[in-house]
Amino acid sequence: MAGDEAAGSSTRPRAAVLLTGSELVTGVIADANGPWLARELTARGFEVAHLQLVGDRPGDLEAALRYAATAGSALIVTSGGLGPTADDLTGEVVAEFAGVDLVLDEAMRERIAGIVAAFPRAGRDPSALDAAVRKQALVPRGAVALNPAGTAPGLVVPTDAGPLVVVLPGPPRELRALWPAALETAPMRTLLAAVPPAAVRLLRYYGLSEAEIAATLRALEESRDIGGVEVTTCLRRSELEVDLRPRPGAEDAATWLAGQLAERHADRLVSADGTSTDELLAGALLAADLTVGTAESCTGGLLAGRLTDRPGSSLYVAGGVVSYSNEAKVRLLGVPAGLIDAHGAVSPEVARAMADGARAALEAELGIGITGVAGPDGGTPTKPVGFVCLCVTTSSGIVLARDLRLPGNRADVRDRSVDAGMHLLLRAARSVLASSPPSPAAS
Amino acid sequence: MAGDEAAGSSTRPRAAVLLTGSELVTGVIADANGPWLARELTARGFEVAHLQLVGDRPGDLEAALRYAATAGSALIVTSGGLGPTADDLTGEVVAEFAGVDLVLDEAMRERIAGIVAAFPRAGRDPSALDAAVRKQALVPRGAVALNPAGTAPGLVVPTDAGPLVVVLPGPPRELRALWPAALETAPMRTLLAAVPPAAVRLLRYYGLSEAEIAATLRALEESRDIGGVEVTTCLRRSELEVDLRPRPGAEDAATWLAGQLAERHADRLVSADGTSTDELLAGALLAADLTVGTAESCTGGLLAGRLTDRPGSSLYVAGGVVSYSNEAKVRLLGVPAGLIDAHGAVSPEVARAMADGARAALEAELGIGITGVAGPDGGTPTKPVGFVCLCVTTSSGIVLARDLRLPGNRADVRDRSVDAGMHLLLRAARSVLASSPPSPAAS
Repeated sequence: MAGDEAAGSSTRPRAAVLLTGSELVTGVIADANGPWLARELTARGFEVAHLQLVGDRPGDLEAALRYAATAGSALIVTSGGLGPTADDLTGEVVAEFAGVDLVLDEAMRERIAGIVAAFPRAGRDPSALDAAVRKQALVPRGAVALNPAGTAPGLVVPTDAGPLVVVLPGPPRELRALWPAALETAPMRTLLAAVPPAAVRLLRYYGLSEAEIAATLRALEESRDIGGVEVTTCLRRSELEVDLRPRPGAEDAATWLAGQLAERHADRLVSADGTSTDELLAGALLAADLTVGTAESCTGGLLAGRLTDRPGSSLYVAGGVVSYSNEAKVRLLGVPAGLIDAHGAVSPEVARAMADGARAALEAELGIGITGVAGPDGGTPTKPVGFVCLCVTTSSGIVLARDLRLPGNRADVRDRSVDAGMHLLLRAARSVLASSPPSPAAS
Repeated sequence: MAGDEAAGSSTRPRAAVLLTGSELVTGVIADANGPWLARELTARGFEVAHLQLVGDRPGDLEAALRYAATAGSALIVTSGGLGPTADDLTGEVVAEFAGVDLVLDEAMRERIAGIVAAFPRAGRDPSALDAAVRKQALVPRGAVALNPAGTAPGLVVPTDAGPLVVVLPGPPRELRALWPAALETAPMRTLLAAVPPAAVRLLRYYGLSEAEIAATLRALEESRDIGGVEVTTCLRRSELEVDLRPRPGAEDAATWLAGQLAERHADRLVSADGTSTDELLAGALLAADLTVGTAESCTGGLLAGRLTDRPGSSLYVAGGVVSYSNEAKVRLLGVPAGLIDAHGAVSPEVARAMADGARAALEAELGIGITGVAGPDGGTPTKPVGFVCLCVTTSSGIVLARDLRLPGNRADVRDRSVDAGMHLLLRAARSVLASSPPSPAAS
């Protein structure tokens, strides 16, 4: 679901993203730069007209540049094709598109030569190396060159009648490193000064459907005109993200709408400012000075992996046990074998015993047990594929349990179980925070 | 790096992929359909001209269709915009592009009504529901409708002078479910009959750099003309994938080249037929009848999570311990506290004790220990961020160890450590297989 904005009705300047590389059009790798650039451009107030992925073919690249200009883009950002080899041709094609020739930037040549000298390359003779360095130091006349984060400089290329073209290297680390410098160049600053601010609001829900939000939006439309607010909803990691993006003049309507949406579904609101569940959980655990121990069966370590994604997570993650076999549940978590016999390994009773076992084995204040049928095999009529039992127990006596029937394939069931585990831990940590007296250290 | 093929020089029919959804151009979600469709089309012998992501704006969608036709594509595959709401407009725009009107497919209407009846939707009145069902059953005149996997039917739409357009729903599960049916339609079969077979070869290496492959390719070019083979190299999951794609007539050259590349870097070749490390490891463990136990510190459960990705992995994964704290290493894995004091938690000695401890705790034949500094904090001059110790030990007495200094940020270090763990386990499993006498059961 998204706003029904027609092309041309927006007053925001348009931008296009152009991602080059033959490995992108054969599907050998999935592009990582497009979504990142789209978010950056959207956050800065541009309307992204399209993203296009093309192979390392000069004709296709040139056609894509012309198409973006025709589609009314004031800005084109490209990634890739800045390396030293013959198929790296973005600089050349963009210069032709801008109608200028390439000139050698001597200072840049020296800078690149210095970088390249630091790592000798196998099988490359000195004259080939010189030619490669020289090639990378060629800059379209009138363009601003950006110092490389790898060996490839970026380019900010004004064109006479057409869009501004920002040329960035393909490796995501290098692209992200050069972007702030591109924003600081004079032509970019001039362009950005003409872009109205974005003022995006992101509401995050867990357990809310798109249909429910759609019904609420329809009801709200009757009390106030919200046509100026572009609403995009998106299910990600089992969460519903609702993105409110006011067109110029609709800022007040967006603020009102955000307040209404937060209030009407307060029970399932995770955050009204886009803060992620992972951040909220880390914050709650740190605030309450709690550690977590995990006991995972069907998720096989993915919950522990997600909990330890964050730097500094050793402050609140004690560790975990992946008890894929019943023996491991008994031996490492102290789950009574009789409990497994009586209720089955996938049961609320075993999930709770796993949570208690994780707390004991890892000396943690919070324990979580997850056991389920991830599939594709192992389902029964009463415990089908997707049946997952979760339980969180705390040393202060809180017990939170959920039994789910999750849709999807094996990977979906595992991912959604991890999501459910994160939210159950967040609820438990908040409960502990709410029930604990103010810390004496705070007085 | 890729072949320097110029636009138009190929004799393969071209195809374009068009992904629609406002959430794609704002970067709220990363598209998953594009790479999948690109691989499918490439494997079937098409040259993918480009992938384009556009928002839910009819003007942009129409412009993208015309652009793909102008770029010479014989086939356009679209995803998204087939839902019941007003912003879902792909069917309508494609009909206009094809120059035909929309007609109601009565059998499809009944089919969708039956699907929708099974799940009542909150906040939607019956007449709105009827209208939504009717909208989804509208088919461009002359098109083939594909039975839905969700509620949205797919479409195969021939156009008089232009490309064939295949319209698929956006949810990846539905898109993948409808694709085989699209391939079986009469217009697709006619088109596919004119596409030369792809005969792609994929070689997979671990521990080989792009520079080394480039040097080998240059050397090989001197003994034989390999200009007809498009070579794409790509680093993924710490592995170098080398993709050989012959243009019509260059099949023999591709076969020769694949043989040469496999032979010249045999020591670092993982597979010559594209088989993944995960498949190879699963196969080796099953063949040798071995189970694995993991002991993870810096990877926090990600290795166990990856090992259990595969259906049926309970046959060879006993379980794992995430020993994020020193206490967990001592308590659950039996790592001597004195060993940690003497060498530090991140040391080859502790990695080996963790591997042994995992075998014992989980009663597994193979144990793996991983301990390292994932960062961004915790690095020291002798053990900087990225320093990771891995060890695999087996019940038959094999010990394989690696100490790595991995580049990148926290996520990179963790991912690359998991990759290294997979490869070390594969080497160990192959060693056990090689040293064990033929199984009596096989005689």
